[in-house]
Amino acid sequence: MNLTNDPSLRSWVAVPPDSDCPIQNLPFGVFRRRAGGEPGVGVAIGEHVLDLAVLEAVGRFDGPVLRPVKVFGTRTLNAFLALGRGAWSEARATISRLLRHDEPALRDNATLRERALVPMQDVEMLLPAEIGDYTDFYSSREHATNVGSMFRGPDKALMPNWLHLPVAYHGRASSLVVSGTDLHRPHGQSKPESVEAPVFGPSRSLDFELEVGYLVGPGNALGTPIPAADALDHLFGMVLVNDWSARDIQAWEYVPLGPFLGKNFGTSLSPWVVTMEALEPFRTDGPAQDPPPLPYLGTSGPMSYDINLEVHLQSGRMDEPVRICRSNFKYLYWNIAQQVAHHTVNGCNLRPGDLLASGTVSGPTPDSFGSLLELTWRGTRPITLGNGEERRFLEDGDRVTFRGWCQGNGYRVGFGEVTGRILPAS
Amino acid sequence: MNLTNDPSLRSWVAVPPDSDCPIQNLPFGVFRRRAGGEPGVGVAIGEHVLDLAVLEAVGRFDGPVLRPVKVFGTRTLNAFLALGRGAWSEARATISRLLRHDEPALRDNATLRERALVPMQDVEMLLPAEIGDYTDFYSSREHATNVGSMFRGPDKALMPNWLHLPVAYHGRASSLVVSGTDLHRPHGQSKPESVEAPVFGPSRSLDFELEVGYLVGPGNALGTPIPAADALDHLFGMVLVNDWSARDIQAWEYVPLGPFLGKNFGTSLSPWVVTMEALEPFRTDGPAQDPPPLPYLGTSGPMSYDINLEVHLQSGRMDEPVRICRSNFKYLYWNIAQQVAHHTVNGCNLRPGDLLASGTVSGPTPDSFGSLLELTWRGTRPITLGNGEERRFLEDGDRVTFRGWCQGNGYRVGFGEVTGRILPAS
Repeated sequence: MNLTNDPSLRSWVAVPPDSDCPIQNLPFGVFRRRAGGEPGVGVAIGEHVLDLAVLEAVGRFDGPVLRPVKVFGTRTLNAFLALGRGAWSEARATISRLLRHDEPALRDNATLRERALVPMQDVEMLLPAEIGDYTDFYSSREHATNVGSMFRGPDKALMPNWLHLPVAYHGRASSLVVSGTDLHRPHGQSKPESVEAPVFGPSRSLDFELEVGYLVGPGNALGTPIPAADALDHLFGMVLVNDWSARDIQAWEYVPLGPFLGKNFGTSLSPWVVTMEALEPFRTDGPAQDPPPLPYLGTSGPMSYDINLEVHLQSGRMDEPVRICRSNFKYLYWNIAQQVAHHTVNGCNLRPGDLLASGTVSGPTPDSFGSLLELTWRGTRPITLGNGEERRFLEDGDRVTFRGWCQGNGYRVGFGEVTGRILPAS
Repeated sequence: MNLTNDPSLRSWVAVPPDSDCPIQNLPFGVFRRRAGGEPGVGVAIGEHVLDLAVLEAVGRFDGPVLRPVKVFGTRTLNAFLALGRGAWSEARATISRLLRHDEPALRDNATLRERALVPMQDVEMLLPAEIGDYTDFYSSREHATNVGSMFRGPDKALMPNWLHLPVAYHGRASSLVVSGTDLHRPHGQSKPESVEAPVFGPSRSLDFELEVGYLVGPGNALGTPIPAADALDHLFGMVLVNDWSARDIQAWEYVPLGPFLGKNFGTSLSPWVVTMEALEPFRTDGPAQDPPPLPYLGTSGPMSYDINLEVHLQSGRMDEPVRICRSNFKYLYWNIAQQVAHHTVNGCNLRPGDLLASGTVSGPTPDSFGSLLELTWRGTRPITLGNGEERRFLEDGDRVTFRGWCQGNGYRVGFGEVTGRILPAS
């Protein structure tokens, strides 16, 4: 076990018992003080943000990789991401040491502490990286089966390629937004079955998709694939992703070239990137794979992660959100090393800051389905929200919030949340 | 007619009679002197590059928009693109004036001329912009019909949505490369009809797609569509695009989420961006649209462009390339204003430097088909190269070169070329 993951570690910074951000987590993000100033890189600890640019400026990152560079006083994680695992481990070890209860260097330096430790309510979170390319996979067998059953019948639910490769498509990078960004209901073309010609108007079947995304660290040169065995060296950490989807627009447009306007009006990310190193204790086996994947997709050992995922919905008329889905990242059929190996096997180059997303994480039980499309079975079985309201798809004013966390022994490594509200069509 | 487009204009810089770059063109690109130095923005005139950073540094861009800013001493066009039409017209007018035969300011200033005018063979061209998102349309009715006929039969060639909206998908931005970049034949999964399970190996049906791309200038805010009537204010200019495609990989992977590894191993761009202003005299009508498009896709007047397009192929055994396709941009069914309006109608935001591409430009006759897939009808009718060689798909060592130009009265506004060679699988 890496020392920074030791369950017995405690911080001198107060951390509430149910916090997503004990000293075992140390997620990275980009923040700006509400009082003003330039954005910079921070790490969450309890209900505070540790300002890494402040620590960097006074030479606290004194390991061999980080001593000669400056990577935290910027508005994106990209420069840090490009440095790779050596830098990430070194930064994490330094931060973990500075925050542990028995280390006085920062704890007892009131001046530095005041400058470096910012209450979370005093900051605004930004997108963690400049994301060059965003790739969305489709790696939940349950999700693909559910969607396939609805649209093509249960006999032909899974396409012939699905069990042989992690299907994916390129999503839109420009419309990635940080948690807290509200989105207008999109307009678009759709063709209800009842009419001959397509119609234009606000989407009538707006949905979320519960996903997890991974930020790429060092990339690969064009023409040089990343073998599955090396994939984890190229991934820095994970965030929650809401791949908002307009089902009516998507259904009409997606043949034969895939989703476009049904998705690219906005995709929301949680701001704190939970590092692969913090997630290491929660590695677990994914589903058995049959047929066995082709050799280039071969991996061994536990290659999934036990990450609890929840979806909460709050209508404009509700005082509190209600949970409508519980799922887990470990249900995914294709693992992240297979996704990276497949993505690059043709020589496609990944770059630091690229985002790969899992696809909707649906589990085996109906309450674990990661979209309203599945939870309401294409609107045929509305869900109840507890206050008398029903939902087939999202209505104006609805707020959707995802939460995610790994449960350790006496602590959790959490993702915080990604939240957003649907505003009326403009 | 804009003065800069006057067919009678001549430059004091020598321009060969068949040049793509007379004073009526003035395409923008990013170059680096082979002798060293930083990249900067240039304009092509005859067989020279005019270094705009040099002119900017000595205050030659003295119009109201460009006087207070510096946008040419950088490695991308993005800053200039973001300024919009006012800046573009001002820059073009300044450059046109400085280069016209009767203007002595630069012509007779030997010191400045020596610094600002670089022979084209002394520079290396780079990608013209940092391209955040790359969108590929599918707007040739002939191409969609050809492909649909081969895969689904002539009765079901066009999908039901095709005549109602300009179908598109998101391509890969990271693997966009400038003309002259050779690409290795990609590896990937495919499933020949003759076998039960998919196989892995180098692609056996590598192809090109003849396309034209447009660079976005000022973008739109997320949630705010660009009406079709305003679309041309958001496009700076055009380049040639080779959307290399591995048909066997694509055929196996693309259902249901569209092309991915069959395309994202590399997409080649010509380096010189021909401005919409230079293309203005070549506007022409596109095909009649029936059924009439929905109101948000309505445009009036000539909205296509008469751009001759050619594909040349040269095998490793040939001394000269042979032309294998002649097509024209005007064959496209959906015009660029409709593409922009559709892309943003759901609120999706475009950003300066984004690339939109037309999709394969196939015309009505077999010699105008813009891909080997169509030219050889899925390999069933090999084409001959004139030296006894045949082609179904591309072989190692093949060089593919696209050329494009508008024919004026006594001059041409040309795109130069986009070229690339297929290297063996690595």
